[in-house]
Amino acid sequence: MRTPCLVINFKAFKEGTGKSALKIAEAAEEIANKLNVCIAVSPNFLDLKDIAKRMSILTFAQHMDAVEEGAFTGHVTAYQIKEAGAGGVILNHSEKRVELDCIEDMIELAKKYELTTIVCANEVEIAKAVAVLNPDFIALEPPELIGGNISVSQAQPEIITKLVDEVKKYNPKVKLLVGAGVKTKDDVKKAIELGTDGVILASGVVKAKDVYQAIEDLASGLV
Amino acid sequence: MRTPCLVINFKAFKEGTGKSALKIAEAAEEIANKLNVCIAVSPNFLDLKDIAKRMSILTFAQHMDAVEEGAFTGHVTAYQIKEAGAGGVILNHSEKRVELDCIEDMIELAKKYELTTIVCANEVEIAKAVAVLNPDFIALEPPELIGGNISVSQAQPEIITKLVDEVKKYNPKVKLLVGAGVKTKDDVKKAIELGTDGVILASGVVKAKDVYQAIEDLASGLV
Amino acid sequence: MRTPCLVINFKAFKEGTGKSALKIAEAAEEIANKLNVCIAVSPNFLDLKDIAKRMSILTFAQHMDAVEEGAFTGHVTAYQIKEAGAGGVILNHSEKRVELDCIEDMIELAKKYELTTIVCANEVEIAKAVAVLNPDFIALEPPELIGGNISVSQAQPEIITKLVDEVKKYNPKVKLLVGAGVKTKDDVKKAIELGTDGVILASGVVKAKDVYQAIEDLASGLV
Amino acid sequence: MRTPCLVINFKAFKEGTGKSALKIAEAAEEIANKLNVCIAVSPNFLDLKDIAKRMSILTFAQHMDAVEEGAFTGHVTAYQIKEAGAGGVILNHSEKRVELDCIEDMIELAKKYELTTIVCANEVEIAKAVAVLNPDFIALEPPELIGGNISVSQAQPEIITKLVDEVKKYNPKVKLLVGAGVKTKDDVKKAIELGTDGVILASGVVKAKDVYQAIEDLASGLV
Repeated sequence: MRTPCLVINFKAFKEGTGKSALKIAEAAEEIANKLNVCIAVSPNFLDLKDIAKRMSILTFAQHMDAVEEGAFTGHVTAYQIKEAGAGGVILNHSEKRVELDCIEDMIELAKKYELTTIVCANEVEIAKAVAVLNPDFIALEPPELIGGNISVSQAQPEIITKLVDEVKKYNPKVKLLVGAGVKTKDDVKKAIELGTDGVILASGVVKAKDVYQAIEDLASGLV
Repeated sequence: MRTPCLVINFKAFKEGTGKSALKIAEAAEEIANKLNVCIAVSPNFLDLKDIAKRMSILTFAQHMDAVEEGAFTGHVTAYQIKEAGAGGVILNHSEKRVELDCIEDMIELAKKYELTTIVCANEVEIAKAVAVLNPDFIALEPPELIGGNISVSQAQPEIITKLVDEVKKYNPKVKLLVGAGVKTKDDVKKAIELGTDGVILASGVVKAKDVYQAIEDLASGLV
Repeated sequence: MRTPCLVINFKAFKEGTGKSALKIAEAAEEIANKLNVCIAVSPNFLDLKDIAKRMSILTFAQHMDAVEEGAFTGHVTAYQIKEAGAGGVILNHSEKRVELDCIEDMIELAKKYELTTIVCANEVEIAKAVAVLNPDFIALEPPELIGGNISVSQAQPEIITKLVDEVKKYNPKVKLLVGAGVKTKDDVKKAIELGTDGVILASGVVKAKDVYQAIEDLASGLV
Repeated sequence: MRTPCLVINFKAFKEGTGKSALKIAEAAEEIANKLNVCIAVSPNFLDLKDIAKRMSILTFAQHMDAVEEGAFTGHVTAYQIKEAGAGGVILNHSEKRVELDCIEDMIELAKKYELTTIVCANEVEIAKAVAVLNPDFIALEPPELIGGNISVSQAQPEIITKLVDEVKKYNPKVKLLVGAGVKTKDDVKKAIELGTDGVILASGVVKAKDVYQAIEDLASGLV
């Protein structure tokens, strides 16, 4: 995935399902082309293949299981994700936490099928441990910025730079996304200025009154 | 779902993923039309929408989560399944067991979105408890027939008839599929003669050398 | 377990751990003897054996795993519970939900080791399904009485009697405890008048300012 | 925990439950005193308090939950473990894997209640990630030595020394136990010579014909 980038997680929102999912993905693609920036989308499992096949932008599965293939009813595999035409997978999201051992197995399976991995971590210690497992990206949610009114651009710059420094000490190659406190173009701009490789967000786009405008505003921070 | 029927679970087999999944579904559709019988397919989540949109036969998701919609990364909802054009969902498969409370919530959510439910049960006591929760179908795996060489047509008929009677006592309206010991046309025929409404199977079709022939043989037992 | 009875769940409250757990159990024993009623206690796993060995009243484990014995680090077995001198086990508590299949296995294992089973159910449909699995007791939490200010004695009597009738239809032998809306002697009295076999509660006793008085008040409703 | 040490995990073996558990612990204590070495035992939850109270040797819980206290039926907390008189806790055993986030929370809770932590890891990458989270001990199971006939003393010394070096790079303070390939006094001796701080094992002691002799043989390798 080209960086800096904006990743949009559709979660299981109705506003990000079916035709609505396609509409968000189309807006993302149009804006990515217009501004010449990298925007990726992560629809639910059922919409993933359709969007991956139609769109030129990168698509991510929201999760996968730590099995390669076989008699595993209801499981999502790296092979399925690859066959669907998707480019990567989000792992260990706070709404889908996985066992430490599975994270390692998942990263290995994703690599085997050439899928880009984004592993979520909501504390700096977790991020450092994840860095050791060598994913492509870590999505950091700085505790100070979760669920509050403080955004990246308003926060003390040290919060982000310290986080980046600490994680890079354990793995200088891993790329970092900010996953909390991002609401505007200025937040995106600031996050990148402070050393991260992009941002990941969900409801700020998926539940926006004007999805196109929301994406365009955020994406213009990547330029 | 029209009965008697044959349900094919693709699990996470490579032979049931992507183009191979589509090929199995196409064979199932062709044979269903040719023999005028009911055949349903259950591809993995990522292939489900594509197959549901292309095919006239009924499609089932292999699992779903007990949430309606919202901030649930990596979850599969009844709404997504409905939007994908699928007709139902398999629940509580032995490879994806769920908590008792979730089964009830799932059945309710499936009903809300007009999805047909097949709940798996591998012991007669479990099947009776599931019957109380009022799903459309219960997929029974008679313990005597699991993983062995004895098939429905060779087993003592009492094994099946007793099972059917016991479950129907708790819910006379629930329909029953046999999920073990089914390998040939004769097994399908016998299962239906003994009072069940169809069969569900996986590797016997998905990993067959000649998938078309395997489905045709089994489906001819429905006539 | 003799009925009617009062079951006190210590959960993982600090006020119900260690010496405090012993104190609650001693109060329960004293009051059980004084009023000649049945009171049972369910301490955490670590306090269970100590209390079971010292006390003449019945003790319950708060959960158990669906394995009999073996290489299962961190698991609690029916054999361990029996060896500890406890008399029973609470299963499927809303804070420790288990898979449907496990509930059946657990009930079977508990019976093998002569442990009394109390299976929790917070909806009437769940209670009916559980009744089929034939535990000794079902702890019902009538949805209308959970977390609200309405107690059993203030509620419409039909709420309880209908619940009792519905569950007994599926298993006339199973005994029923009420697990919500019980705060006073009058609630206990009313619950029993309406056809239940006792009550189960936690913070109302464990976090009471005067534990002895709280137990005595509730237990006097059993007389 | 004084090092080098021998940790005995009783798992859920019947031979390590109740009176048999006490007998193993007594043998361990006697041998620890006789040889003046450190031996710790990890009984099941129900036997833990009794053994912790009677014995002078260190005792470990086999698992704990990532909650501090409260309305958590069937949960084991650091507070309970401390109150029971135990000295530490085994975390993330392969038979009780936990989510990455929980491991961090558990280590923090254990530290708060001054419990020694042993976190299990069965691959070197996992061990390195765990090292970042700063537990007291990591129990390593070198993949080459699991379930096979090769023991530590017969293996190429590089297998162990490389493992030790790699993990210490991420956390020079963390102590290391070997958890596979240990059967005799020579294995224990060799493990310590190669830079580890002790060994952890289960069935080799618990299911031994002569438990006393088995412990004495292994413990003599610590001298």
